[in-house]
Parts: sequence; C-alpha cells; structure tokens
Amino acid sequence: MLAQRFAVVRRASIDLCAGLTEADMTVQSMDDASPLKWHLAHTTWFFETFLLIPCSPNYSPFSADFAFLFNSYYEAAGPRHPRPLRGLLTRPTLPEVLAYRAHVDDAMAFLIEAAQDDATLALIDLGLHHEQQHQELMLTDVLHLFAQNPLRPVYRAANPAQPATAAPVLGDLHDWVAVNGGRFTVGHDGNGFAFDCEGPSHDVLLRDFALAAQPVTNAQWCAFIDDGGYRNPALWLSDGWQTVQREAWEAPLYWERRDDRWWRMTLHGMHPLDAHAPVSHVSYFEADAFARWAGKRLPTEFEWEVAARGTATHGHFADSLWLDPLSGANASAARLRQMFGSVWEWTASPYMSYPGFRPAAGAVGEYNGKFMCGQFVLRGGSCVTPAGHIRATYRNFFYPHQRWQFTGLRLAEDR
Amino acid sequence: MLAQRFAVVRRASIDLCAGLTEADMTVQSMDDASPLKWHLAHTTWFFETFLLIPCSPNYSPFSADFAFLFNSYYEAAGPRHPRPLRGLLTRPTLPEVLAYRAHVDDAMAFLIEAAQDDATLALIDLGLHHEQQHQELMLTDVLHLFAQNPLRPVYRAANPAQPATAAPVLGDLHDWVAVNGGRFTVGHDGNGFAFDCEGPSHDVLLRDFALAAQPVTNAQWCAFIDDGGYRNPALWLSDGWQTVQREAWEAPLYWERRDDRWWRMTLHGMHPLDAHAPVSHVSYFEADAFARWAGKRLPTEFEWEVAARGTATHGHFADSLWLDPLSGANASAARLRQMFGSVWEWTASPYMSYPGFRPAAGAVGEYNGKFMCGQFVLRGGSCVTPAGHIRATYRNFFYPHQRWQFTGLRLAEDR
Amino acid sequence: MLAQRFAVVRRASIDLCAGLTEADMTVQSMDDASPLKWHLAHTTWFFETFLLIPCSPNYSPFSADFAFLFNSYYEAAGPRHPRPLRGLLTRPTLPEVLAYRAHVDDAMAFLIEAAQDDATLALIDLGLHHEQQHQELMLTDVLHLFAQNPLRPVYRAANPAQPATAAPVLGDLHDWVAVNGGRFTVGHDGNGFAFDCEGPSHDVLLRDFALAAQPVTNAQWCAFIDDGGYRNPALWLSDGWQTVQREAWEAPLYWERRDDRWWRMTLHGMHPLDAHAPVSHVSYFEADAFARWAGKRLPTEFEWEVAARGTATHGHFADSLWLDPLSGANASAARLRQMFGSVWEWTASPYMSYPGFRPAAGAVGEYNGKFMCGQFVLRGGSCVTPAGHIRATYRNFFYPHQRWQFTGLRLAEDR
Amino acid sequence: MLAQRFAVVRRASIDLCAGLTEADMTVQSMDDASPLKWHLAHTTWFFETFLLIPCSPNYSPFSADFAFLFNSYYEAAGPRHPRPLRGLLTRPTLPEVLAYRAHVDDAMAFLIEAAQDDATLALIDLGLHHEQQHQELMLTDVLHLFAQNPLRPVYRAANPAQPATAAPVLGDLHDWVAVNGGRFTVGHDGNGFAFDCEGPSHDVLLRDFALAAQPVTNAQWCAFIDDGGYRNPALWLSDGWQTVQREAWEAPLYWERRDDRWWRMTLHGMHPLDAHAPVSHVSYFEADAFARWAGKRLPTEFEWEVAARGTATHGHFADSLWLDPLSGANASAARLRQMFGSVWEWTASPYMSYPGFRPAAGAVGEYNGKFMCGQFVLRGGSCVTPAGHIRATYRNFFYPHQRWQFTGLRLAEDR
Repeated sequence: MLAQRFAVVRRASIDLCAGLTEADMTVQSMDDASPLKWHLAHTTWFFETFLLIPCSPNYSPFSADFAFLFNSYYEAAGPRHPRPLRGLLTRPTLPEVLAYRAHVDDAMAFLIEAAQDDATLALIDLGLHHEQQHQELMLTDVLHLFAQNPLRPVYRAANPAQPATAAPVLGDLHDWVAVNGGRFTVGHDGNGFAFDCEGPSHDVLLRDFALAAQPVTNAQWCAFIDDGGYRNPALWLSDGWQTVQREAWEAPLYWERRDDRWWRMTLHGMHPLDAHAPVSHVSYFEADAFARWAGKRLPTEFEWEVAARGTATHGHFADSLWLDPLSGANASAARLRQMFGSVWEWTASPYMSYPGFRPAAGAVGEYNGKFMCGQFVLRGGSCVTPAGHIRATYRNFFYPHQRWQFTGLRLAEDR
Repeated sequence: MLAQRFAVVRRASIDLCAGLTEADMTVQSMDDASPLKWHLAHTTWFFETFLLIPCSPNYSPFSADFAFLFNSYYEAAGPRHPRPLRGLLTRPTLPEVLAYRAHVDDAMAFLIEAAQDDATLALIDLGLHHEQQHQELMLTDVLHLFAQNPLRPVYRAANPAQPATAAPVLGDLHDWVAVNGGRFTVGHDGNGFAFDCEGPSHDVLLRDFALAAQPVTNAQWCAFIDDGGYRNPALWLSDGWQTVQREAWEAPLYWERRDDRWWRMTLHGMHPLDAHAPVSHVSYFEADAFARWAGKRLPTEFEWEVAARGTATHGHFADSLWLDPLSGANASAARLRQMFGSVWEWTASPYMSYPGFRPAAGAVGEYNGKFMCGQFVLRGGSCVTPAGHIRATYRNFFYPHQRWQFTGLRLAEDR
Repeated sequence: MLAQRFAVVRRASIDLCAGLTEADMTVQSMDDASPLKWHLAHTTWFFETFLLIPCSPNYSPFSADFAFLFNSYYEAAGPRHPRPLRGLLTRPTLPEVLAYRAHVDDAMAFLIEAAQDDATLALIDLGLHHEQQHQELMLTDVLHLFAQNPLRPVYRAANPAQPATAAPVLGDLHDWVAVNGGRFTVGHDGNGFAFDCEGPSHDVLLRDFALAAQPVTNAQWCAFIDDGGYRNPALWLSDGWQTVQREAWEAPLYWERRDDRWWRMTLHGMHPLDAHAPVSHVSYFEADAFARWAGKRLPTEFEWEVAARGTATHGHFADSLWLDPLSGANASAARLRQMFGSVWEWTASPYMSYPGFRPAAGAVGEYNGKFMCGQFVLRGGSCVTPAGHIRATYRNFFYPHQRWQFTGLRLAEDR
Repeated sequence: MLAQRFAVVRRASIDLCAGLTEADMTVQSMDDASPLKWHLAHTTWFFETFLLIPCSPNYSPFSADFAFLFNSYYEAAGPRHPRPLRGLLTRPTLPEVLAYRAHVDDAMAFLIEAAQDDATLALIDLGLHHEQQHQELMLTDVLHLFAQNPLRPVYRAANPAQPATAAPVLGDLHDWVAVNGGRFTVGHDGNGFAFDCEGPSHDVLLRDFALAAQPVTNAQWCAFIDDGGYRNPALWLSDGWQTVQREAWEAPLYWERRDDRWWRMTLHGMHPLDAHAPVSHVSYFEADAFARWAGKRLPTEFEWEVAARGTATHGHFADSLWLDPLSGANASAARLRQMFGSVWEWTASPYMSYPGFRPAAGAVGEYNGKFMCGQFVLRGGSCVTPAGHIRATYRNFFYPHQRWQFTGLRLAEDR
C-alpha cells in the first residue's frame, strides 16, 4: 500500500532525530554536509514542488519562502539558498519544519489516494527513494558534525553493543571468487524502481576476473599504514598524492591514535578499531592506492554488478542497532561476503551515462545526469543505507577525495 | 553590594536570550562573531578560571573539557578550541551551559562573601565588566546571524515602537562645538574601574579644534552615496578602496535597497531608513572616506575625550526597548549631542598603548595589550552597550574593515 | 636514421624560440603553463636522467642542481622544484640551458651510435616523442603568456597570412557520417611507437552512431553564445556551471569583444574571428554544454577511433606557417574532415586505463598512469602538434576546466 | 646643478642592473616586489606623466600603452595594470624600456633647462627622490627573487669582501643613551626637500627615555631564537602570533640552517651569519616580540627623531661595495651607533598623518597619504638606501608582517 509505505518512510526520517537537540539538527559542519533540519525540510520540499503544486489544484503551499530555502540544486525550480550557508538557517525553527512536514504529508495523503496515472505514482516513488537517500546522508552528516566536537558525542548508545560474533573469518588477500568473462547485459532492466542513471541496460564485454571474497578489513588497512602507504608517492594517483599531502592524511577519516592504539569515531562514539570489520571512510584515492600496494586493482562497476548477480541483497543496513560496519564474522556465508551493506565499495568506473541515457523531462531531470563528471561509482550500500533501498544495479557516486560516507573497497584482479 | 551586582549582571546575559531557540544560540555566522551559547559559557569560564580555581580551594570545576572549549584567546590559560569552529559545538547543550553558569554562580556567591583582598575584588569587577562587553557582542552577533537569514527574523518585537519624536533636529555639517587647544591630561586616573588600556593617564598636546555637534546621520550618508562616494577612489585609503572593491560595498552593512528605498536590517527586523538617526555599521574605511568627502576629518581619541569632559554619560543604551540608534531629535539637549550611546564613534587614533603601559601579570594580562596593532579606537558606547558600562576614557577598538558593531562617526576640523 | 631524427627533433625545439627574448622564455603565466626555457631544459633532463646516467658509464652530468630544477613530476627520480615556481628560475640563464642541451646532445650522439638493445632504443624514441609533446606545450604556453600582456604581442608574423581559401564549406549540424555498431578492437596494436596508455588493444562494443563531418565552427559557437548558452544552467554539468560562474566565462578563451565584433588572440596576434574555422580553446565543460544545446552529444573515444580508421593522418599541423585552426574550406575532402590537426577534439571518455594496462617499470612508469583520474580524452592533434606525432590511437587528456590548449569538438549522435 | 644631478640619479638606476639578464629584470617574485625592468619604466613614467605631459607642450609620449602599464598606484592618473601581474610583462622588452628612458631623459633635459617656477623644480626634485626610493626597492626585490632560486645566485660579487673589522664592539642590552623628556618640535621644518608626510612640524611631549646605543645584533637575535622566542605566544601581538604560525617563521627572512649553523642569503650570495652585524629582515611583529622578550620596548618615531638630532646622517649606505649590514665594529664611534644606514629601524609608531597634514593637489597627492593605515614607521635608512637620500625626519613605512626590506630594530626603555 503506497499510503502506508509513504507514512513509514516519512516517519523514518523523524525517527533518526531521536535524542538530538534542535541545535544538533541546525548546524552544518562542512560544505558537503547538510543540517538534519534541512534534510527534513528539503525532502518535504521535493513532494511539495514536484507533486503537490503541479498535481493538487487546491494545494496551498506552506510558505512562499521555503521554495528558496530548501531547494538543493534544481536550477529549473528557481533560485536557491547557497549550499554552504544552510547551517545559518536557525529559522524556520524545528517545530516550523515539522509543521511543514505535517502540512505536506496531509496533502500527500489526499494525492496518493487520488493518484491514478503512472507518472504521478512514479514521481511519488522517486520522492520516497529520494527521502531514503537523505536518510543515509542524515546519519553521515551528523557523524561528521559530532566528529568535529572535541567531546566526541554519542549519536546513539551502543546498547546492545555490536552483536557477539563467532570466531572471525580472517579475510586475506588470497580468498578470491573467479568470474568468467564474456558479453553481459548490465544496468537496470526497467522492472521495479530504479534511478535514471541505472539504465538503459546495455551490453558490455568483460574479461576473466576475480573479486576478493570480502571487503578490505581494518587489519589489512593497518598493514598498509604500517608499510608506509601514506608516505609512498609511487602508490598514488597524482591528484591523490597532492590530496594526501595537502590534507596530511595518515589514516582513514575518523581514525585517531590514542596511546599507541587506533580508535574510531562512530555513531556510537569513540571505539577501538575492530580489526576484522571492513575499512570505512576511505576515499577513492586511498582505495586505489591500497589496491596498487596490494598488487591488485579495483573492480569496474560492471565486474561488480555481474559478480553480484545471484547474491541476495541481504546485509547489514541501517535497520540494525549497530550503525557501523560489522566484522566479517557476522557476514552471511555467501560466496561473496558483505557485497551488500556495511560499506559502499569504490569501483574503478567514472560515473558516466550509459549508452542511450536520456534525463527525465523537467526539473526532475536534474536528478543525476548533471553530476556525471569527475566522480566514481560505488556499489552495494552501507550500514547506514535504509534496508530495502539497494539493488545490484544501484550506482552511488562521490568525488575521489570524499570520505565522510561509509566507503570501503573490495579488490579485484585479472584472471 | 557586590553580590547583588554580580547577580544582576549575570542575569542580564540570560535575559538577552529570551525568545531565542537553542539553535539561534549555537550557530556562528562568521569568524568575528560567536554563538550566544558560547558567550554564556565563556563569561562563566572567566570566573571559573581566574577566580574560582585559583582562589577557592574547595571549588570543583564543572567539566574538565570546558577549559578547552570556552577559552577565547588566553594563550597562558592553555590550548583552546579554534575560534572559527565555535559554531560546531552543539554539545554541551544549552541546558548544560546553564547548569555550568549556575554551578559557577553558586561558587562565586561564596567567594564574593569571603573575598577581602583588593586583588580578588578587582578581578571580580573585571569579570563583570568583561561580561558586559560580551552582552554587547551577543546583540551584535545575533543581529549578524539573523541578517544572513533570508527570512530576516526579528530578535525583539518593536513594541512599543521607536519613541515618538519631536520635530527632528536636522544635523548639518555646520553645527560645531569648538575646543581650545593646550596641554591636557588624558586617560583614566585610577579612580573606579577601568580597563588596563585606559591608563596610565598622561599629558598630550592638542591644537584648537572643533567637533560636530552630533554624529553623522543616515541622511548625510545618503548624500555621500548619491555623490558617488563608494565609487571614487580619491576619497579612500588605499586599503579601504581595495576592501570596497573586493566586498562590493555600496552602503553601510545591513542596508538594503527595496523598491528604490533604503531599508535596514535591525534587531527589530527590517525597517525603513530613519533619515535623522546616526549612521551605524560603517567601517573605519568608510568613516574616513566620508570625512574626506565632507572636507573634514575624524577626531583623535584625545580630542574626543577632552571634548567629552563635562558631558554626562547619559544616552541611549541597551536598557532601552529600542535596540537601534535613535534619531537626533531624541538626543539630550547637550551641547555635544549623542556623545554617549547610539553609536560608537570611530576616531583617527590607532589603538596603541599609552606611555608607561604595563599589562597585568598572568593570563589576565592578555586582556588588551596583545591587540594593539592594526586597530582603531572608538569612543562613546552604542545603543547595545549596557547602561553604566561606559566612560569618557573607555577605548573600544576594531579593525578598519569591521562593521558588524554599531559603529558610526562624528566629524572634526582644525580651528 | 635515429641520429638524424634525434637532431631534427631537438633542433625543432630551438627553432620554436626564434624571435623570443630570454624573458619571454623565462616567465610562467599560470600554474598549468611552463616557461619555454624550462621546456628546453626538462626535455634535456629526460635524456640525461633516463638514458645517459643509467646507460653511459662515462657520462658526466652537466650540473648536479638540474636534476632538482628540471624534473617535472617523476617522484621516483627524486625531489623536484615546485611547478608553480618554475617562472622564478631566471638562473640558470638561457645560454646555460643551451649549453646543457649541447652537452647532452653530444653525449646522446655517442649513445645512439652505440645503442643496440631494444630497450634503449625504445627509451630514446620515447624521449623524442616526449620532446614533441613539449613542443606543442611551448606554443600553447607562449600564447597564454602573450595573451596576458595588454600589448598582445605577436609570436610569429602572419606572413604569408592564412592561405587563401576556396569558397567555404559551410558546416552545419546536419552533415553526418554514420558508422555501424559492432564489436571492434581498439587501442594500439604494438606496431610502431605508442605511449603506454594507448594499449593494450582490446575489444569494445559500439552501437550505431554518426559523427559530424567536421568540427564545430566559430560561427556555430556564436549561435550558442547568442542563444544564451553561457547563461543557461540547464545546458551545463553541475561542475561546469560552477566554473562558468566563478570564472565569468562568456566565450572561449582568447575571444575578445571589440566594437561589437569578436576578435581572438592568436600566435599571430589579434585577429577577427574566422567564422568557418573550428572553434578552439573551449573546455570539456563548454564542449559538453554545446553538444547538449545542439541536441547531440560528444563521441566516446572509441567511436572517434573507429570512425577515424582509414582516414589518413594528414591535416593542419605545426609545420604550417599558420599556427591557428584553418577554416573548413582548406580541409581535405575526406568524408570526415579535419579529423587530424587544427583542434584536439574532446571526447566523452574519462581518461582511464585500458583493461590489462601495466605501467612501465621504473620512473618512466609515471609517464601516464598516475594521471588517470578526473581528466577526459582528446583525439586527433591540433595546429600546434608536430606533424608526424599523431595517431588514430593517440590519447591526449586534460581536466574538464582547462582550455589553454587548442581544444575543440566534433558532435556525435546515436543512430 | 639640477641637470647633472638628474643625470646622476637616473644613471644610478641603470648601474644597479649590471650583471643581470633581461629575465632577471622581468620576473616578479611576489606581489610586494616588482621587476627591475618595471622599476626602470615606472620611474620614467613618473617624469613623463607629472612633468613632461603637463609642462612640455611639444612633448610626444613614447607610447600610449605605457601610461597603463607603468602607473603604480595613482588612481587619478587613470587605470593601471594590476600589480601582481607586473611580472608577466615580457614586452615591452628591456631595450624598449631603455629607449623609453632615453626618450624621457632627453625631453627632461630641455625641461630642466627651461624650468623656472618653483612648482616644477619641486616636482623634478620629487621625481628624483622617488627614483631613489625605487633604487632601494630594486635591490630588495632582486634579493627576494634570487632567494627563491635554489641556486641562490649572487647579485654582486663580494670582492673585496666585507671590510676587515677591528675588534668587534659587542653590543649588549645594557649599553644605553638616555634622553631627557620635554616638549619637542618634530617633523620637517620645510628647509630642503622632504616628502609630504614628514610635515607639518609640530610639538610633542616626550617622557624621559633611553635608546640602545646600537641596533639589535644577530647574536642577540640568536639568543631570542634559542630561548624559544618563536614558540612562545606570550611574547607576541595576537596578529603577530597568527602570522608566526601561518608562515611557520622560525628565524628572520633569508636565514637558513645548514649543518647546525645559520647562513643568510644576501646580495652577495649565501654567507655565514655575522654575529655582530645588526639583525635584518625582521618584521614589526618580530621586532616587537624581541623587545618584549628583552623586557624593553620599541621607541616611538619621535623618540627616535629627537635622539637622532645632532647625529650626522653618515653611515653604511648603498654606495658601499658591501650591500649588507655591517658588523658593529665598523660603525662610527658616535654615541648612538648606526642610527643611519645598515638597517631601517622599526618604531612603535603607526604611520599616521601629522596634525594639519594636507596632501598635495592632483595625482601627486596620492604619494603618501592614502597609505596611512595599518603600517608602522621606520627610521634611519639601510645599507641599500642611496647615500644622501636619508634625513632624521624621514618616515619609511611598511605593514607589520613585511620583512623583505632591510629592517631591524633598536630597543628603547622608559627612564
């Protein structure tokens, strides 16, 4: 039932704010991140702008100002408040934003009941997936904010703590799953929801290759650090090496050295490094350098997609009580472990359009196409991705220097 | 009674927060400004650090973290949180900061009761004047924050509105008060409280001069604008002209052109320009250029101080219900009108030490001396200065490009 | 004869400096460009570092300092002088650099005579192609320098002027050459010289497509400008639009509006726009926006390569007396006109490694691989590319915002 | 004879270029510095713009472009080439600039012969003093350029080397010259040439004070470094401490640590530190911090001027063969040693106008007044000041962070 699904998804955004103050939800910790209050309003703006105003003749917008304040990047939807200034919007207040949500939800309930045509239903569906994307961002953005605070606040108490694990499956670099090359059809086939950039489906040629059975772990990353990985320019792309030096990177984001031991800032506060969990919060530059150090490479997005076929999209997602990558031992016993959930996996594929790609008409057409430059594709979802939001064809994308998302990697090699 | 005065001053800081959300009090709108919550905590830190910890043996600090978080610039008091990041501190929460205040206030009550020695009493006095300085900053900083918000929120309702005025006294450039030159003793004589930089008192030579009977008004400033004042490099200091061009200044801060009419963002929201009120929110660069345009000059701080003698320190301060400069008609009928209150007046004097100046020993010695470079002295207080906080010898100081304070000017000329 | 070819290529670098002062050859006009004197020294350093020092036991380096000063980006070859500071090196003087060249050329003559093994011969070959790449950069860099000079100096007199042309072939958007899709082997097959990034050859799938018969012309670009192309965000990639706004782009680089007419700064000084010549000095962002405006797209590098097969690599190169794109009328009568020469053509392909790519061992391995991030492939060479330097498989690459090279575009469409 | 003096001063500028290449004279090493070729042209532009064009009816300007290219900062003289881009002007060439000089010198010879009125003669005088100021800058700017070059080129051979010295006079902090306070007339009295900012003369009050008998030496500065002077924030102005940290200052400019010993880059190349020479190339921030560390202070400009009276303006200037501060032993035996020459001495006085100051009419009026903000006064001249260019009333001025000039300090104390 769409009405119920709408309510559940919308409610989930609110639930993410439990335990936060209005200030926690208002401050912006860097240009790439947005305040949680802004996420709450912007996802609402999406329904108001693309559904209620065009499709509900009697709808009365909640506030004339909000179109300006809560537009993210849709040029066709008019001027907008500059992104780096989102954190200055102490007004509208949180109660006003919640009232905005209620106002739009009420109107949407009528629209959903009345909606018959596929285009409208598809737009509602898009709006819900859009909101789920922002739910993931809410978690990554509040983590970034709290990580800037010397008090290292806890977003959610780790109670119960990380599920007890069986004896850990020690991932090593020699545990591989081989895939025979050939001609494959990749991309979304049009059955069920997908973002525009996942299609059109088309054929690609792959050569024989193998994927590592599991993502690179923190223990493996420590070996890279200890071997001087962050100090050896021969391992890095030129742009990556410049970034390492400019940013003085010595470890993944949120790693801190205390008393000769690595700790990580997490949504559950500071925790000692879990050696067997997938490494997270590494950039493409770091993932690429690690692969070169290991004598391997990153998979292409199509190698990843072909290999993932037949693997259920089960895994460790944001419905868990533990909002951080799980150590390998808790992963399913699939041949390819932790393909879905825990950490997004960087691929070697620049984020570009598939052959024959056409953006949707109207402002919604700005959804993905205009970002197809300079970014790399990630696959598989993370521990803060809403369960049910992921697909094998799902293409996430970030710039190669970004690492505030739950981003890791899985190695590949030629066969 | 010191105990009562302590309570009144401390209470006044809290009262300034009426009607604000926790978010309003947490966000930092630029590096020069600080969050109101930070001001509340920092003024408390001052008492804790310089009085309770050294003087109250049984005092237990509220939190070990706060010494780091709420130190402003005292290098000798240990490391501190970087100023531009103050707005990221959503934690400690507002209730925690209020509890911190209560904890310190309780301990201070005991200390005040027990305090006998002059040094301790002087430090308490300093702490209270320090807090009053921050009260002024709280108002200027929240105005700056709200001015960045496209909604232009109202800090305090203008109810009653600006007091009805008699027929305005039209200030013109020909209304002057002459002062005969000679040898004068300036600076604070040591009776009563003063900041260290106000002394030692010493002699200076002044030539015959005259001061304008009142500050430059908005109407006069409009004439400067209309005459191309912001487009004529011949009027400006070289650094000022660069600033005008880089910042694209065309009017004082907070002025907005709407429908061919000037409005100003104020603590009472957007208001049409009051032609007869003193111009406010101009930088030293602008004040200096205006004076050159008018064929006059800025007074030196000593000309101002000598002329101000005998003028009561009455005026329009923050105890008013109207937190914006009053039009001239409401000024007292003194020979020199509005010398105190309404707007700080830029002088031509760089902020430097007086002959024989010695900073206090210890961290408190960082109070003023280390800022004696590149700034200019302002005199007289403003409409957001706490009543009773000002003196004729009081030296405020800002960089020549800064204009988020209530800063105006009064012309001078040689005689 | 290798010895003769070596002498010819080396001599060509010197010939490019005719008419320039030592100052012209020393100044660096932006970080992306290098001084001509530096190019002369760096290409020499290449032979000294990768050939003479390892292969000629009796070779005595010209100067111990030059290894530091004239290393471009080879991390494995030791530390190096920072790129943005190349223009500060007024010493060594030009005569010293010329003596360095003579010293190395003499030693290379012996080495060439003695060289037997394929590896050495291949390295010499690489060094010569490397020098030819820098010859192109010398021309683009001196143009950039002269374009910053208000005097708009002439690099080379246009005498004779641009060859007289027959009636211009008016390129329009409807003149297309169709190519049937299928499975194609692309990349260099190993016969003859190629840079490492041109291989390994491998198979790709292409769908039916068509290429425009000729590059986009200045006249077509004017239509884009006149239609508001630089002011319509819907046409641009998100990063591109930010660049347009930050850089205030309104036309290609080196275009100037004078008396309501477009002029261009060229190596022959200021010239009125030639409507029928290919547009040059446009960035990837602009090329991509133009294609979207035209309802077309850029070709992939493999579409370009497959279509170019069978086209002779003739065209308008740097051996011409006219160092600027030629109008279409002078192009060969090939089906696909001006595929080679005149302007590099942006493709839609990010510059990434081909399947199975392995960089060469040692410092020379830094030649191309470490730049495979964030750049786009260009094909076909330009009017300042040395004749004989180009191939159908040749992959040039630049960042999407760069436009100081002779870069244009050819449209593609699906069929 | 004015004609002869004109020729001598103009010739001196050319002589400074001996041994330099055209490239050495074209490159700009930082925004504060200018190319020597630019200095040669700008000083010529001054005579052309302020004398020949207004006063010589038959004068034909050398080039219409030069008014734009070689205006330094005179807004009233029309638009100008941006200062940071001066180093891109490889054209006009050096021979063209020399021809410009000859053209103007010829015309000036006629004008000088004909000039009768005091205003014209005064302007010529100003032009010559202006050119002498630029002669000092030519030396400081070429030193800065060569200091950026890893080869550390020698501007002028040190042959003969620094004159042999008698036993050094060990400066210590206890060697003082006391001056009784009182009322003094300071500033230039109008007899002979002075820059506008040196007057009007006026009275000031001084208290009893003492000046150190000689400038602070390198040995004393080493003690400051060894005592952690650059690491102790308590010694620094707030802005100074920020600069120390941002720029990572650990010693004066041009000091280099090699094999546990300090060397300095000089106009004679790299030399070991001369312990007894005055420290040079320190900023106001450093001078002020040193004084605080020593328990002393900087003198005001009036203390310096009053103390300098009766001291002959002899000293170590640019006519010496040794273009670097001389060790104390070579100083004259005056009571106050090295008041003139060797190093400019920072004073505690902000550079502001004297009472009654009026800039000259016209563009020449921009000479000094518009820089009266944020800078500090230096007195006494340096080893690269032309002999005869200095006076006791001479006010040089720089920003507190600048240190590429030959700037040192002399301590003062209250008595």
